[in-house]
Amino acid sequence: MNGAEALIESLVRSGVEVCFNNPGTSEMHLVAAIDKVKGMRPILGLFEGVVTGAADGYGRMAGKPACTLLHLGPGLGNGLANLHNAKKAGTPVVNVVGEHATYHRKYDAPLNSDIRSLAGPMSHWVETIEHAGDAARMAARAVAEARRGPGRIATLILPADSAWNELAAPAPIAALEPAPSPEVTPAQIDAVAEALRKAKNAVILLGADGVRAEALAAAGRVAAASGARLYCETFNKRIERGAGRVAAKTVPYFAEMALDELQGTDLLVLAGARVPVAFFAYPGKASVLVPEGCEARELARADEDVTGALTALADALGAPARPNATQELKRPDLPASSDFNAGTIGQAIGALLPEGAIVADEGCTSGMWSQIFTAGAPPHDWLQLTGGSIGCGVPLATGAAVACPDRKVVCLQGDGGAMYTIQALWTQAREGLDVVTILFANRSYAILNIELGRVGVSAPGPKAKSMLDIGNPTIDFTAMAKAMGVNAVRCTDNAGFAKAFKAALAEKGPHLIEVVI
Amino acid sequence: MNGAEALIESLVRSGVEVCFNNPGTSEMHLVAAIDKVKGMRPILGLFEGVVTGAADGYGRMAGKPACTLLHLGPGLGNGLANLHNAKKAGTPVVNVVGEHATYHRKYDAPLNSDIRSLAGPMSHWVETIEHAGDAARMAARAVAEARRGPGRIATLILPADSAWNELAAPAPIAALEPAPSPEVTPAQIDAVAEALRKAKNAVILLGADGVRAEALAAAGRVAAASGARLYCETFNKRIERGAGRVAAKTVPYFAEMALDELQGTDLLVLAGARVPVAFFAYPGKASVLVPEGCEARELARADEDVTGALTALADALGAPARPNATQELKRPDLPASSDFNAGTIGQAIGALLPEGAIVADEGCTSGMWSQIFTAGAPPHDWLQLTGGSIGCGVPLATGAAVACPDRKVVCLQGDGGAMYTIQALWTQAREGLDVVTILFANRSYAILNIELGRVGVSAPGPKAKSMLDIGNPTIDFTAMAKAMGVNAVRCTDNAGFAKAFKAALAEKGPHLIEVVI
Repeated sequence: MNGAEALIESLVRSGVEVCFNNPGTSEMHLVAAIDKVKGMRPILGLFEGVVTGAADGYGRMAGKPACTLLHLGPGLGNGLANLHNAKKAGTPVVNVVGEHATYHRKYDAPLNSDIRSLAGPMSHWVETIEHAGDAARMAARAVAEARRGPGRIATLILPADSAWNELAAPAPIAALEPAPSPEVTPAQIDAVAEALRKAKNAVILLGADGVRAEALAAAGRVAAASGARLYCETFNKRIERGAGRVAAKTVPYFAEMALDELQGTDLLVLAGARVPVAFFAYPGKASVLVPEGCEARELARADEDVTGALTALADALGAPARPNATQELKRPDLPASSDFNAGTIGQAIGALLPEGAIVADEGCTSGMWSQIFTAGAPPHDWLQLTGGSIGCGVPLATGAAVACPDRKVVCLQGDGGAMYTIQALWTQAREGLDVVTILFANRSYAILNIELGRVGVSAPGPKAKSMLDIGNPTIDFTAMAKAMGVNAVRCTDNAGFAKAFKAALAEKGPHLIEVVI
Repeated sequence: MNGAEALIESLVRSGVEVCFNNPGTSEMHLVAAIDKVKGMRPILGLFEGVVTGAADGYGRMAGKPACTLLHLGPGLGNGLANLHNAKKAGTPVVNVVGEHATYHRKYDAPLNSDIRSLAGPMSHWVETIEHAGDAARMAARAVAEARRGPGRIATLILPADSAWNELAAPAPIAALEPAPSPEVTPAQIDAVAEALRKAKNAVILLGADGVRAEALAAAGRVAAASGARLYCETFNKRIERGAGRVAAKTVPYFAEMALDELQGTDLLVLAGARVPVAFFAYPGKASVLVPEGCEARELARADEDVTGALTALADALGAPARPNATQELKRPDLPASSDFNAGTIGQAIGALLPEGAIVADEGCTSGMWSQIFTAGAPPHDWLQLTGGSIGCGVPLATGAAVACPDRKVVCLQGDGGAMYTIQALWTQAREGLDVVTILFANRSYAILNIELGRVGVSAPGPKAKSMLDIGNPTIDFTAMAKAMGVNAVRCTDNAGFAKAFKAALAEKGPHLIEVVI
């Protein structure tokens, strides 16, 4: 058994079943090991941003890590943006990054780079396997590190000789239990309960696992007992929402709107959430989005047992056993309007979204309507752009579909972000994944046109406009999807969209619907 | 004047004319500044790998830097792979990376990351502009740093408030002269001359600017005087080759072939080149590709005056004023074979390549034939994959075409690498760039199939094969190019290819020819 085989075997024993990959020469022994070891499913991405984004989507839905296989520093580099999103989400991911043989590193061959320095900012844990004999143990450690808290990014760098060298002795291959999430102390629970009793206008801000169904139910009990309102962060890893679940409002994206929304709040209880801050700074506007005179108090950090803390808080408040208010099943009708825009499309999605759907949302300016109109749809999961790095949607949908083959995945994708990682459609086609991508073609970086105005440029000239407009030339996403083996259709009115969406939902496998808005 | 305007104005005064960009919210003041300041041309890429690869192609051909405009850590991350290639080439590039406002960084907003750590491995020089008043001075410094030696990567991180704050005093905007390349001492020249006189079987290994026409002519004089053979490195920034120029053989890619080729050499003179090392390590094979008993001796490092050193060496050897041997004009005929493969396509390219063409070569296993068959074509430039990170070809061609609008650019692109940065075709269409992309569709990572065998896997199973095969489903590159506004045609025989290539050469603007081999 060589180091590569020990590593893959150890990952499998630790519960890792899927390897999203794009290997190169330095990873050929890993390719051979995946071929040989039973229980590891390789899924090729044609670009590393697809690989890491799919690992994010998989981890969010499977609740355990997939591994990635990346080619040296540049391959990792290509995957960093979606690792950034995964890190901000708190998704468990194990990266396996190939490296030159230990003795070859010093020659600074063309593909040589400082992988550790590149990996650091987007990883919680990075280690290099200097000897084949360490591969199994370190792989088990990486999985345990990835599974700490809500999920973390663990990166293993594997020099080629640590992969190909034979082990001197049988590898000690055994899974390690991740460190359990710290529990919140009773004293802390009581203090928050006391503050809630005193507050006149409290908000519970939910983040991390605080937006999963069980935690939301506990938060609903807290709300019933205390009168506090429930909010979730602007971008979330995985919201379990829809009929029968407790709903939380979303903190608005724009800083001034967020402050307006929270105005008058005198207590902000953080349950898996962080003190809300502006996504970006703007001249003369606040960075911290806590209204003046409002106390922010931490119930549980994201890496603590958020659900347990909310449940304990509800009990401490003498809350009823169930929340007062859960979302009723209430779908909109299909739109009758002759207008065709993100709003009417969202309405149609609300009318048709199937039970158990997983929505991967990188719709940006176009996606928010869909979120509003699906509030009363049958129960479903909503995955968001947690790190703000566009190019996440299509890969995220890809990974979610791998994790949950029996559930329909709907991807809301803006055209700007789509062009970052459009290659993920090919992986959907190859793997026959059950994903419907709704491609919002507004032919601009629409958010940036808004932002340019917000920084005070009221009349941009042609050069500025050219940097925000992606409509010249027009990109034919329908043709592009077909070119990668995905069924695709373009819609320009509500009747056409409703028909296309119904058809795509009715048929297994990947589909793309380009909506020209 | 605010910091963003001072920065752009200073870049323009330092000779930077083009900004390849993909901005985000934190760079809106830079967008406004580019809009306002005369002399900076913005060119949008739909993905940052396009942006940095185009900056590489531009810098190689213009001999001065373009700037990039990238959105925070993730935007830089997306551009790292092609910055890696540019760094290994020694291409001058100035990166401008947006960052959160200085006072906003500490809140760790969703897009926050350690940009400096990400930039370090792929930059020679990294600085953060902490105050608007420093923007002009530091921009001039960045250009001077980028222009040192053959070219370097200089990265400026610009916090948003350093962009939007008004300058307290007029900015001291003046270009800085880059430090001149160190000259090689007469003693070093004499020592190499002496060694060459004693050697029985010497090789001059050329790298960096040593493969430009003037340096090659000097090397040809050295060869005439000493009998040394001329080689260049396997992958080069920019070879000036073809009829009338001195030709150098290429060190083969595979380590054992390189050692075979150099067998019997007793002196290896390094002129801008490094001691040759294997691209990858393999079990039991050498890392350093200098034959036993051969002395390696440095004439000039890549950052020294390589051309001057070769000229001085020729003079010290009493060489004739001109090289004995220059390449004669000698094109192959168009292929008559009924076979259609990388060889016959290379032959047709050799028959038709126009004078002054720029070839951006990421053909990998398919491109080498083209290189062989164009040896005697009219003078042209050849740009290669210097850092080994695929996804370089189409962006490189894009940037070269921006730098040299009056020259025809021919891009040799393998299908595997094409899928990394195919979005560059859109930029070619938008800018009307004169590029003919020849897309070699062998529907596999062909080099990896070879490499898998080389590491000892003789009979890969279906899982291994699936990680190297990109033919299932087949990618329709013709449709994909058209979807981004580029004329495209698919060829499956020699007559069809010759006709399509002639037609594409005859018409200005971007074309793609998919050759199914």
